[in-house]
Amino acid sequence: MTRSNLPLDADRLWDDVMALAAITDPARPYTRRSFTALFLEGRALLAQRFADAGLTTRIDTAGNLIGRLDGADPALGVIAIGSHSDTVPSGGRFDGIAGVATGLEIARALRDSGVPLAHSLEIIDFLAEEPSEYGLSCVGSRGMTGSLDEAMLDLTEPGGETLRDALRRVGGDPLRLGEATRSDISAFLELHIEQGIVLESRALDVGIVTSIVGIRRIEIVFQGEADHAGTTPIDLRHDALVAAAATVTSVRRTAERLAAEGPGYFVATVGILTVDPAASNIVPGRCRLIVDARATDPQLTRRFAAILEAESADHAAAARVTRASFATLSDGPPVACDEHLRSALRQGADELGLAAMDLPSGAGHDAAFMGRIARSAMVFVPCRAGKSHAPEEWADREALAAGAAVIYQAVRTLDRSLAQDAGVGAA
Amino acid sequence: MTRSNLPLDADRLWDDVMALAAITDPARPYTRRSFTALFLEGRALLAQRFADAGLTTRIDTAGNLIGRLDGADPALGVIAIGSHSDTVPSGGRFDGIAGVATGLEIARALRDSGVPLAHSLEIIDFLAEEPSEYGLSCVGSRGMTGSLDEAMLDLTEPGGETLRDALRRVGGDPLRLGEATRSDISAFLELHIEQGIVLESRALDVGIVTSIVGIRRIEIVFQGEADHAGTTPIDLRHDALVAAAATVTSVRRTAERLAAEGPGYFVATVGILTVDPAASNIVPGRCRLIVDARATDPQLTRRFAAILEAESADHAAAARVTRASFATLSDGPPVACDEHLRSALRQGADELGLAAMDLPSGAGHDAAFMGRIARSAMVFVPCRAGKSHAPEEWADREALAAGAAVIYQAVRTLDRSLAQDAGVGAA
Repeated sequence: MTRSNLPLDADRLWDDVMALAAITDPARPYTRRSFTALFLEGRALLAQRFADAGLTTRIDTAGNLIGRLDGADPALGVIAIGSHSDTVPSGGRFDGIAGVATGLEIARALRDSGVPLAHSLEIIDFLAEEPSEYGLSCVGSRGMTGSLDEAMLDLTEPGGETLRDALRRVGGDPLRLGEATRSDISAFLELHIEQGIVLESRALDVGIVTSIVGIRRIEIVFQGEADHAGTTPIDLRHDALVAAAATVTSVRRTAERLAAEGPGYFVATVGILTVDPAASNIVPGRCRLIVDARATDPQLTRRFAAILEAESADHAAAARVTRASFATLSDGPPVACDEHLRSALRQGADELGLAAMDLPSGAGHDAAFMGRIARSAMVFVPCRAGKSHAPEEWADREALAAGAAVIYQAVRTLDRSLAQDAGVGAA
Repeated sequence: MTRSNLPLDADRLWDDVMALAAITDPARPYTRRSFTALFLEGRALLAQRFADAGLTTRIDTAGNLIGRLDGADPALGVIAIGSHSDTVPSGGRFDGIAGVATGLEIARALRDSGVPLAHSLEIIDFLAEEPSEYGLSCVGSRGMTGSLDEAMLDLTEPGGETLRDALRRVGGDPLRLGEATRSDISAFLELHIEQGIVLESRALDVGIVTSIVGIRRIEIVFQGEADHAGTTPIDLRHDALVAAAATVTSVRRTAERLAAEGPGYFVATVGILTVDPAASNIVPGRCRLIVDARATDPQLTRRFAAILEAESADHAAAARVTRASFATLSDGPPVACDEHLRSALRQGADELGLAAMDLPSGAGHDAAFMGRIARSAMVFVPCRAGKSHAPEEWADREALAAGAAVIYQAVRTLDRSLAQDAGVGAA
């Protein structure tokens, strides 16, 4: 296809992304952490651009920045497009903001087209999607879906501020959180960089996300004895690292098997392994591992956890150490993307002559929470070498615009098809 | 045996050990780090007790505190007994000081006996046997054996002081180090707690050390790629921890085999394993291991290193990561204890009716350096549960006295036998 045929302005979209990228901690680009002054500066720019695009702009009680374009038929629900404008420390220029800017550009393109939607359109910048200093991710999408509870609001950052107070500080209202919970959203669409190498390696334009993985985090602690590494014969040791190392190997071997067998996508990782006391001349007395397992089908996670539970116990016994902990720290279920929205996205790619494939999302996204209250789906665009959460994170201008255009087309399609559904439902 | 028949005073010996134990950082007993004010306070007490025992006391240019009792025959060399009075952080009450106090009590017992030695006797508190803030162990015994070089003197502690300046501060003289190097020592004997559980588990009184292990430290670094733990399929990963974990398993399996096959004693340990970036949702991009291998026969260390070199390369290839480093950080050779001294120690145990066994030392000691310039041997006494370098480190009063008495008997034997040797040698 000729990219100049896209139904929106690639340069205008690109300018939004780069304008936000310029709002960064200069000492460690690209950093715009949620709840900071830089974050609020970014939001002020976004709110101005929302207003310039003719959107009615507000912050809901869960701290989400929302721009709204009323539809021709107030009885129909809302089609929402969004993502987040916060970043991880030393993150990239695209993760999150690309999806917010996509919504903004679609709003402008719809206005430019002179053909308004029947549905109302909302562009959402969800609060604090990345893990924040308060130890919680997806704060805004949790809030919008009734999943932000009192215990979460009591979380405290190292400086002592509670999430409750921080939420108030950025314009939310923890006492009226219920007002942020929505029942009027008919469809939610999110564009995001893939953060993987599948699309790039296959030279595809867009990925249509089939489902968003569930993530289970398991903590395993092995307790041995911190003996002298010179004077303790091998056969008298209680070496916690020997059990931990065998467990890392088990995680990898089991993940390879389940990924190959399916059903669906599976990965598992030991990203954290600590050794105590960590001296070259002392047998490790204690080791702690964090295992991160992700699947699009929860039965795989259950099988994985059962295998790991058994094998880690065997490894503890073989090393003559105690498995002091085998604990699930968190367990979010996978979320299947809505079939109707996926069909509309695929149709949009076809209309534009873009090469698309179905693929799972191995990362969590606001769209997973939105799936609890609305039809929800995602479009991935390729990013260079799969790099993300790093300054070298990169997506091409045309690639971004192509993904945004797929969502534009789908919004047009859905504005009709969802209205018919609503009509049928009311009949 | 009846322990009251010992040729020395168990209570007097015990009092020396406990008097030094009382000189500790009160916030983390038992801590008397080399070069600190507490260390100097301990030495002042030792020097006073040396003087009270009739010893001529000095500090040599390598910073060793030496008490001397001249012998009846000035032509004969010196019989030296010693160990060290510094501790690790949060260490114990016995490691090191038990050997210095043993020498002191033997000097007192010899004087009390009214039968002087033909040889001169020296009691040595070696400077900084434990790894110090300057990153070096056995500073004093290196100095006494001509093994303390200029590069070592240039080592700097975190505060910026060089070892050279620190040595001067505790009474040494780095410009005249050669004066500390000795050629007049006929025999060196050191008592130390076993720091293992062999003697306790066999209910033996003393261990006569056959040899002191050589220690090789190997650094292995695996370099992979720090990719997203959710979006990077298992078969596309370059996970440094997968290679590191397999290497830990190789170290253990190889150590078990070599320890069983011999010849001699062998242990190997991975005590340090670091993961970078160490986040639960990031595939480990880099891992560093320190392997500590100890053997009484250097051919075992060479075989171990060759196996580890090959297997760690295989593990890197299997995990599709780079083995960025496989480097020997240090490699001290094993030191066999002197047969003649061991025979005298065994005879001493027999004379006292004490149960003894031969055993290797898995830990390094000042006696290993002294073996470079003199006949050198060691006696181990049992310690509770093998615990050392920890506040719970413990040796019984009678056990200490029994070990010291074996050295006392050996000194008497050696005073005759070494004089005969010297006569034969001069003929």
